Amino acid sequence: MPIIEMKILEGRDQEVKDELIERVTQTVSETLQVSPESIRVLLYDIPLTHWGIAGKTVEKIRS
Amino acid sequence: MPIIEMKILEGRDQEVKDELIERVTQTVSETLQVSPESIRVLLYDIPLTHWGIAGKTVEKIRS
Amino acid sequence: MPIIEMKILEGRDQEVKDELIERVTQTVSETLQVSPESIRVLLYDIPLTHWGIAGKTVEKIRS
Amino acid sequence: MPIIEMKILEGRDQEVKDELIERVTQTVSETLQVSPESIRVLLYDIPLTHWGIAGKTVEKIRS
Amino acid sequence: MPIIEMKILEGRDQEVKDELIERVTQTVSETLQVSPESIRVLLYDIPLTHWGIAGKTVEKIRS
Amino acid sequence: MPIIEMKILEGRDQEVKDELIERVTQTVSETLQVSPESIRVLLYDIPLTHWGIAGKTVEKIRS
Repeated sequence: MPIIEMKILEGRDQEVKDELIERVTQTVSETLQVSPESIRVLLYDIPLTHWGIAGKTVEKIRS
Repeated sequence: MPIIEMKILEGRDQEVKDELIERVTQTVSETLQVSPESIRVLLYDIPLTHWGIAGKTVEKIRS
Repeated sequence: MPIIEMKILEGRDQEVKDELIERVTQTVSETLQVSPESIRVLLYDIPLTHWGIAGKTVEKIRS
Repeated sequence: MPIIEMKILEGRDQEVKDELIERVTQTVSETLQVSPESIRVLLYDIPLTHWGIAGKTVEKIRS
Repeated sequence: MPIIEMKILEGRDQEVKDELIERVTQTVSETLQVSPESIRVLLYDIPLTHWGIAGKTVEKIRS
Repeated sequence: MPIIEMKILEGRDQEVKDELIERVTQTVSETLQVSPESIRVLLYDIPLTHWGIAGKTVEKIRS
């Protein structure tokens, strides 16, 4: 039944996202002892311009 | 005052989304006995590549 | 597959919450033409002290 | 440590978003007396077609 | 119209939370040039046992 | 930088939650090749009465 939402910075390859969904689901399944079928994972790509740390966007921090 | 957020798979027509917002608002208004004006609904289209079930993206499941 | 999260003010009876979950699920199922089994609804009771409108908590507005 | 997520209507200039992230971070830092470095802000641009008020999308309300 | 959700660590006085809601609303109102009446703020107190940094709960980090 | 929010059904031991936070952080760190220090995990215990599947609360489904 667990619902997992992950906000990550945009720019990663879909292969990495596929692996992230697969491995996090497996980890949650093992730790909570629930079936993988009951687990939902939603991924959000957040633009560098929309993620702020210490008041600055990641885009500005990196430039 | 209710705030409702709905995550749905991308790909639906805007007409359907309009109807979804309208009908869910009406249902919540009737059930909670609050005015429709007080209700906010936010819709999120989630890409098939970002929604995982049982560790696989919906895109992979459907292909 | 839809995931619906509803933030409502605390203080409602569980019967009303049961009805809210049931009716919203039915509405979403009909509008999107997906099975009710694929729909998840999460309800959050927000304390009057933690919900702000126009900069004031609902608790202060009501008192 | 605070994590702040702000949903706003799409269409604003990045300069305004930069200022929003900067000023909200400063306000939270001062009010909670935590360092700005510990504060994360995520901004979401919500399309006018995906934000419902009183059962209608903002796009329809404005047209 | 902005909807702001803030997750903070549990344990703060309600007076501080009141001030947080008031000041963040004012900051958002000024920066986006929207009326305070259109702004919603939801606060969530997260238990020290439910907030993880670097894989450890804040409760463990602090003890 | 990733921010992970997990909604799980209430009733699990804190030891399991500790392990969940630790292992998910490790999995995300390895998969995305980011430092564990940059990862935040927030856990939410959702009451059986507030989690709906197919229009019914988990409490009703289990009883």
